[in-house]
Amino acid sequence: MQQQFTLEDILKFDQRYRATFVNSLGGFKSLVLIGTVNDKGHTNLAVFNSFFHLGAHPPLFGFVVRPDSAERHTLENILTSGEFTVNHVDATFYKQAHQTSARYPENVSEFTATSLTPHYMEPFKAPFVTESKIKIAAEFVRKIDLVENGTIIVVAKIKSVVLPKDCVEMDGYVDLEKAGSISCVGLDSYHTTTKIARLSYAKPDMPLEIIT
Amino acid sequence: MQQQFTLEDILKFDQRYRATFVNSLGGFKSLVLIGTVNDKGHTNLAVFNSFFHLGAHPPLFGFVVRPDSAERHTLENILTSGEFTVNHVDATFYKQAHQTSARYPENVSEFTATSLTPHYMEPFKAPFVTESKIKIAAEFVRKIDLVENGTIIVVAKIKSVVLPKDCVEMDGYVDLEKAGSISCVGLDSYHTTTKIARLSYAKPDMPLEIIT
Repeated sequence: MQQQFTLEDILKFDQRYRATFVNSLGGFKSLVLIGTVNDKGHTNLAVFNSFFHLGAHPPLFGFVVRPDSAERHTLENILTSGEFTVNHVDATFYKQAHQTSARYPENVSEFTATSLTPHYMEPFKAPFVTESKIKIAAEFVRKIDLVENGTIIVVAKIKSVVLPKDCVEMDGYVDLEKAGSISCVGLDSYHTTTKIARLSYAKPDMPLEIIT
Repeated sequence: MQQQFTLEDILKFDQRYRATFVNSLGGFKSLVLIGTVNDKGHTNLAVFNSFFHLGAHPPLFGFVVRPDSAERHTLENILTSGEFTVNHVDATFYKQAHQTSARYPENVSEFTATSLTPHYMEPFKAPFVTESKIKIAAEFVRKIDLVENGTIIVVAKIKSVVLPKDCVEMDGYVDLEKAGSISCVGLDSYHTTTKIARLSYAKPDMPLEIIT
């Protein structure tokens, strides 16, 4: 049985119910930990599920920050230092990743609070997550303020990627299942995946083929 | 064994290899079909994997358009009509969804070309996808031009949602696995999911609990 919710219905929802409902509608999302450092050398780590691809040449991506949340330290540190790390999350430490969303004081590092291990890689000052199998160093490009609700889109460029060699296939495809990366839905639901297939490049009047 | 790729390495990749590689790094993504209609009444349907949540109050989301691709008709129609539909994709029609990315001429509807069935719901003029279990009607809010690479972020507001009643849980969480929604990686890899757990709201010094 189908059910319809109009905008008016959604606006009348209880705040928590609405956040859970609308977030779920966004579908399956990537799950990453963003590592930063402030000008006093204090590290910060925060989980994000809004990482999205913006382009390959140059390699650009974006993610969304809510400045009234535990994510505000991440944004402050990125604006100060101009750099950060992006670390894929797998099933062995997804609870620790989730725990980074708690509102710790600025002087408490989420690395310490959640027992994740910082890893440093020259020339980057921001900490990577040792436990993460896919690590990306990123450079801040610019931020876009959303006047509609005060959220901010951070646009960034990939500076370096470290990942298991056997996860990169012949055509550049990165096998995220082999790397153990997981997905999430809404604010709190974590999911492993199973590949159905990769499909060939689509052309009009040409049948699709399964690549792998 | 770990492998490192710097920005310089990535910029030297063959174009197709680079697109596949960088797209994969974005992690698991949502998969939706966007339905539009132009001022002559011609329908268009295109697959997108860049749908991202921007806020719940009001319910806002964004997605990324590459104007030099098969996605250009979608953008033109949205700018003209101010509305569009977002339809979740499941495993029963993912090949048809993928096929919509082929470059059909403007007068060929991807509905006809891929044998997906348009569905109309008052007062919206844009077509929904009958086969899709989660259907969203959306209103264009604004576009953000990315000077860095010519892509465009479309910001939109949810006007209405139709979904199976038994997929909405007590707290507003939408069970996307029950609805059959699938995920994708990169440009062409499709994945089903298996829930690990939902975790409780994180607070400092409070142990996490598994909700379901």
